[in-house]
Amino acid sequence: MKLLRFGEPGKERPGLLDSQQQIRDLSSVVDDINGDSLSAESLAKIAAFDIESLPVVSNAQRFGPCVGSVGKFICIGLNYVDHCEETGAPVPTEPVVFTKATSAITGPDDGIIKPRGSEKLDWEVEMGIVIGREAKYVSEADAEDYIAGYCVVHDVSERGFQLERSGQWDLGKGCDTFGPIGPYLVTRDAVKDPLNLNIWLTVNGKTYQNSNTKNMVFGPAQLVSFLSQYMSLQPGDIISTGTPPGVGLGQKPPVYLNVGDKVELGIEGLGEQSQKILPSP
Amino acid sequence: MKLLRFGEPGKERPGLLDSQQQIRDLSSVVDDINGDSLSAESLAKIAAFDIESLPVVSNAQRFGPCVGSVGKFICIGLNYVDHCEETGAPVPTEPVVFTKATSAITGPDDGIIKPRGSEKLDWEVEMGIVIGREAKYVSEADAEDYIAGYCVVHDVSERGFQLERSGQWDLGKGCDTFGPIGPYLVTRDAVKDPLNLNIWLTVNGKTYQNSNTKNMVFGPAQLVSFLSQYMSLQPGDIISTGTPPGVGLGQKPPVYLNVGDKVELGIEGLGEQSQKILPSP
Repeated sequence: MKLLRFGEPGKERPGLLDSQQQIRDLSSVVDDINGDSLSAESLAKIAAFDIESLPVVSNAQRFGPCVGSVGKFICIGLNYVDHCEETGAPVPTEPVVFTKATSAITGPDDGIIKPRGSEKLDWEVEMGIVIGREAKYVSEADAEDYIAGYCVVHDVSERGFQLERSGQWDLGKGCDTFGPIGPYLVTRDAVKDPLNLNIWLTVNGKTYQNSNTKNMVFGPAQLVSFLSQYMSLQPGDIISTGTPPGVGLGQKPPVYLNVGDKVELGIEGLGEQSQKILPSP
Repeated sequence: MKLLRFGEPGKERPGLLDSQQQIRDLSSVVDDINGDSLSAESLAKIAAFDIESLPVVSNAQRFGPCVGSVGKFICIGLNYVDHCEETGAPVPTEPVVFTKATSAITGPDDGIIKPRGSEKLDWEVEMGIVIGREAKYVSEADAEDYIAGYCVVHDVSERGFQLERSGQWDLGKGCDTFGPIGPYLVTRDAVKDPLNLNIWLTVNGKTYQNSNTKNMVFGPAQLVSFLSQYMSLQPGDIISTGTPPGVGLGQKPPVYLNVGDKVELGIEGLGEQSQKILPSP
């Protein structure tokens, strides 16, 4: 299933993309697409519903973030073999973990606001794992059971704030609008192999990132298991699994985003995002 | 006012400590002590209520985290002049920012679980700022208006996970039970000078931390203003303002917490916490 949230910011309603690519309103089945509705039981209940009986919604609706009420937004750095090669960094022996502010989350086609003082605004297309069940000290063998599905994440980054300031990476990762997620949460059963999906990103039509999730160092099961050794994961938490090569910082010379630029990104089977860069208020 | 939450984990109800140190049940006035009830208007409504008419609750109740549904738990490092002197680090010229997982939040007297593999479990008493109003590009002069109140925070840390692993500090800061907050959210009007409060911590009765918030490098107004230049702050967000000298890592030789140890900590006017160190499940 492709689950989604549609409507105005803060007032999104739950929906589902049917086989004719129409949005069906799921409001009568679940309150929202969030931690409460992502358990195996809840997903089975949605799957068992007669989709044809649900109201069709206009596709002109705004897509909201595909998951509401996200508790933790955890990111993994340097997680593509080809990205490590590009940067000359050794392939990590364990996941490189950092976090993103949940207030950065936006819809897949909402604009990205260039913050005041930003001079190094950069892109990173990533595959997100959405947690469906509380995970604590979970083994790799069992980890898949804790995954509700996958989505496209744009891990927007301000390299000056991230790397040239006195704190950790957080200042440059957590700005408002730096975390578009969606358009869909594609449930695990509908993703044949999450480690064999094309993943790409363009800026003003020029391709900068173009790889495949098979180049990941640590796959979804390894990441869920690893993280659960340190902190429990709750339904609705998102783990963004790192970006392939081709970010702006990696260009020679570096290329950064400016107001008016258009970024488009996507992952095979998980949908596409499109964002304009907007000035700060 | 001293606002609080009492009852079993996940089922806490809103309360208030009256002038006789009795807990009064606020359930008939607000749904919870969280972002929705921390606006100036909401706090004025609580203050205007006839407290004597509210039911008295047994003080034997468990204290929960003093704020529910925290969206962001932001921490500031190296923010005490005397702590910088102790470590030999230069006094930072801007706040050192990192974040803590919100799933680490617990009540002030709940135990601290020593995670599997932990060998360097450490303490940090800190004053927390609780946000009452959305803050975005706020000036230092206006920043106080965005603060609902203050609370005691224990920024429990695992130094091995924090400093000796491949990620950012998050692995060692975000483990479950690593974020006791409370017992009270003391509203801003009831804290005469947040930059002149004694702050202390003992382990098994021995004093390790004993300072005053006047030794802070960046005070609450500076921190709220600074952070709001990078990410918006929402009602119910917590900013933990850094720890004074005397952490376990700073002892010669270092001292770390073991199962059975008892940590007590407090801040003048904001209340006290008491935690036993518990084994991992």
